Amino acid sequence: MNKPTILLLMLLLVGVYLLIPMISSPRLLALPSQVIAPDENPMSIEKVALGKMLFHDKRLSSNATVSCASCHNLMLGGEDNRGGSIGIDGKVGLRSAPTVWNAAFNKKQFWDGRVSSLEEQSTMPITNPDEMGQQTWHQVITRLANIPGYQRAFNKAELPLSKQGLSQAIASYERTLITPNSAFDQYINGDLLAMTEQQIRGMKLFIETGCNRCHGGATFNGLGAFQRFPIIEHSKYEQRFQFKQDKGRSLVTGNKKDDNFWKVPTLRNITLTAPYFHNGKVKALDLAVKIMAKLQLDKDLSDGQVIDIVAFLSALQGKRPQQAMPVLPY
Amino acid sequence: MNKPTILLLMLLLVGVYLLIPMISSPRLLALPSQVIAPDENPMSIEKVALGKMLFHDKRLSSNATVSCASCHNLMLGGEDNRGGSIGIDGKVGLRSAPTVWNAAFNKKQFWDGRVSSLEEQSTMPITNPDEMGQQTWHQVITRLANIPGYQRAFNKAELPLSKQGLSQAIASYERTLITPNSAFDQYINGDLLAMTEQQIRGMKLFIETGCNRCHGGATFNGLGAFQRFPIIEHSKYEQRFQFKQDKGRSLVTGNKKDDNFWKVPTLRNITLTAPYFHNGKVKALDLAVKIMAKLQLDKDLSDGQVIDIVAFLSALQGKRPQQAMPVLPY
Repeated sequence: MNKPTILLLMLLLVGVYLLIPMISSPRLLALPSQVIAPDENPMSIEKVALGKMLFHDKRLSSNATVSCASCHNLMLGGEDNRGGSIGIDGKVGLRSAPTVWNAAFNKKQFWDGRVSSLEEQSTMPITNPDEMGQQTWHQVITRLANIPGYQRAFNKAELPLSKQGLSQAIASYERTLITPNSAFDQYINGDLLAMTEQQIRGMKLFIETGCNRCHGGATFNGLGAFQRFPIIEHSKYEQRFQFKQDKGRSLVTGNKKDDNFWKVPTLRNITLTAPYFHNGKVKALDLAVKIMAKLQLDKDLSDGQVIDIVAFLSALQGKRPQQAMPVLPY
Repeated sequence: MNKPTILLLMLLLVGVYLLIPMISSPRLLALPSQVIAPDENPMSIEKVALGKMLFHDKRLSSNATVSCASCHNLMLGGEDNRGGSIGIDGKVGLRSAPTVWNAAFNKKQFWDGRVSSLEEQSTMPITNPDEMGQQTWHQVITRLANIPGYQRAFNKAELPLSKQGLSQAIASYERTLITPNSAFDQYINGDLLAMTEQQIRGMKLFIETGCNRCHGGATFNGLGAFQRFPIIEHSKYEQRFQFKQDKGRSLVTGNKKDDNFWKVPTLRNITLTAPYFHNGKVKALDLAVKIMAKLQLDKDLSDGQVIDIVAFLSALQGKRPQQAMPVLPY
C-alpha cells in the first residue's frame, strides 16, 4: 500500500473508533446528573417554570381534559401504566406511552423515532386527533394568549407566545425530568455495596445474555437507537401478543425495510412502567424479560435467571426529583 | 314577670346571642390559618401524606382514569372549571364541582349538603357510577392492598387499610387545603393598604346590597348554610339558565319544602372557579353577581356597582399553599 492509502485507512479506523460509542454504547454507564441543552434553546429557571405549567395544563387539549401529564404522569413512572393511553374523548391509543423520565437523553423520540428533539416531540400530541385533539395551532395559541398569567410567564421566559415558544418551554422542563442516582448508578460510581448480590448476579447475566448490545449506555437504550422487534418472527409469544401487527418505523419512513423496527426503549425505571412493549400487551416484567431473550437473542432463560435479571432491572429505578405542583394561571 | 321567667328569658337571649354566629355570621371574617380536626380523626403528617397520595391517585377509580384531583384540580381553583365535571368513561355530571379549597371549613358538603363531614364526603364519589365508578368498596380496598407502598403508607399513618382509613386520610389532607392570607384577610387583620380603593368600595356595596346575609363569615357562605335559589322564580335569567330545573336539596331530603334549596357556596377564590352556580351555566363573574342581586335580593345593580363588587371578590383569592407532588406507590 502506498502512503496516502495507509493514511486514509488509519483515518477511517480512528473515525469508526470515535463514532461507535457516539451512536450506541453496549457499555452500561451511570446516568449524567444533568442534561446538556441545545445551543438554540438554553435552559433558564423561567423557561422550566413555564414548561412545567404547560405540561400540566389540560387547557392545551381541545376540550381541556388531557394534559401532557395525563399520559406522562410524574407522580408515577412518567407514564400512565396503560397498554394504550387515553386521549381526547376517551380515545385509546395503539401504543403504550413511553416514559418522559430521562427522555431528554434520547436522540430519537416516540416509539417509531419519528423526530429527534424534545422540541419537535412536545408539540405533536397537542394536535394529534387521538391525543390532545387541537385542530390548529392558532387555536392553541389564542387560548393561551387569552390567559394573562401565560402572557406574563412567556414574557418572563423571554419566549414568544407561539408554537415554537411553547415547544422550547416544555422541552426545557423535560430536560429536568431525569432520575439519576439509582442503586446501579451508585454502584457504578464506586459504591460497591449499593446493589445486592442478586442484582450484581443479574447485571452479569444481563451482559452475558447480550441484552446490553441494544440496551446499553447510560439510558440502557443506546440513546434511542433503532432495532427490529421481534427478530424471531414466529413464536408462541407472537401468537399471544401480536407484536408484529404494528409495523412501527416503516409507517413513518415508508420504507418496507423498516417494518417492525422500533426505537429501543430505555430500561431505566422499567419497574414503574408496566405494561411492556410498544403495544403494552405484556403486564409482568419477568415475562417481558423472557420474551426479549427469546425473540431477540434466541435464548431460553431459566426462571432463576429471569428473577436475577429483574432484580438488576429494579436497581435502575432512579430517584425521581421532588416536584412542586405548578400553580396554573387562570 | 316573676323571677324564673325573667331568668329564663335572659338565658334564652344569651343562648340566641351565642348561637347565631355559630350557625352563620353575616359579618365578614378573616379565614383562620388552620382547620381544627375532629377528635375522632386527629391530624398527623403521615395521614396527610397518605391522603395526598390517595387524592391524586387515579387507581381509586374503576378504570384508573379519574382521581379526586381530576375534578378538584389543586393546580387551579380546587375544581375543574366545568359546568359539569367529567367522570368515568367521559360521563358528564349535572353539577359543577365545588372547590376543595377551604371545604374543610364547611359544615355541609356537596351542593345539596347531603353529608356534613369531609370523612363522609371523601368516599362518595369513588363509588358513584358517574364519577369514579367503583362498584364495591371491596374492590377499592383490594386494589390498594395489592400495592405494597400503600400497605406501608397506611401502616405509617396508623390507619386501617379500609374505607374508613381511606376517608380519614383524605379528609386529613383536605384539612390542609386552605387559602388564608388573601388581600381581604390582610385588610381585615389590620393591613389597611392591602385592598385597593375599588375593592373597599366593592366591599361596602357587597354589604349594603345584602350579599353578606348569606355569604358571610370567614368562608363567605355562612359555613355552608342552606338557602333557596332562585328566590325570584320567574325572570329572564331563569329562562336563560334554568336554575330551577335541578331541585337540589329536596332530592336528598325528599321534602318538597327543600325544592331549589342549596348549600350557599363559598365566595373565596371565586375568581378562579368559573363557571358559576350549581349547574355551571354562567361563565362570567360579573353576570353571576348581577343575577344573584336580582334573583335573591330583587336589586338591579348598575354595571359600575357590579365591577366594584367583582373587584372586591378578587380580593378573596387566597394564597394557595405550595404543593409538592406526591410520589405514588407502584
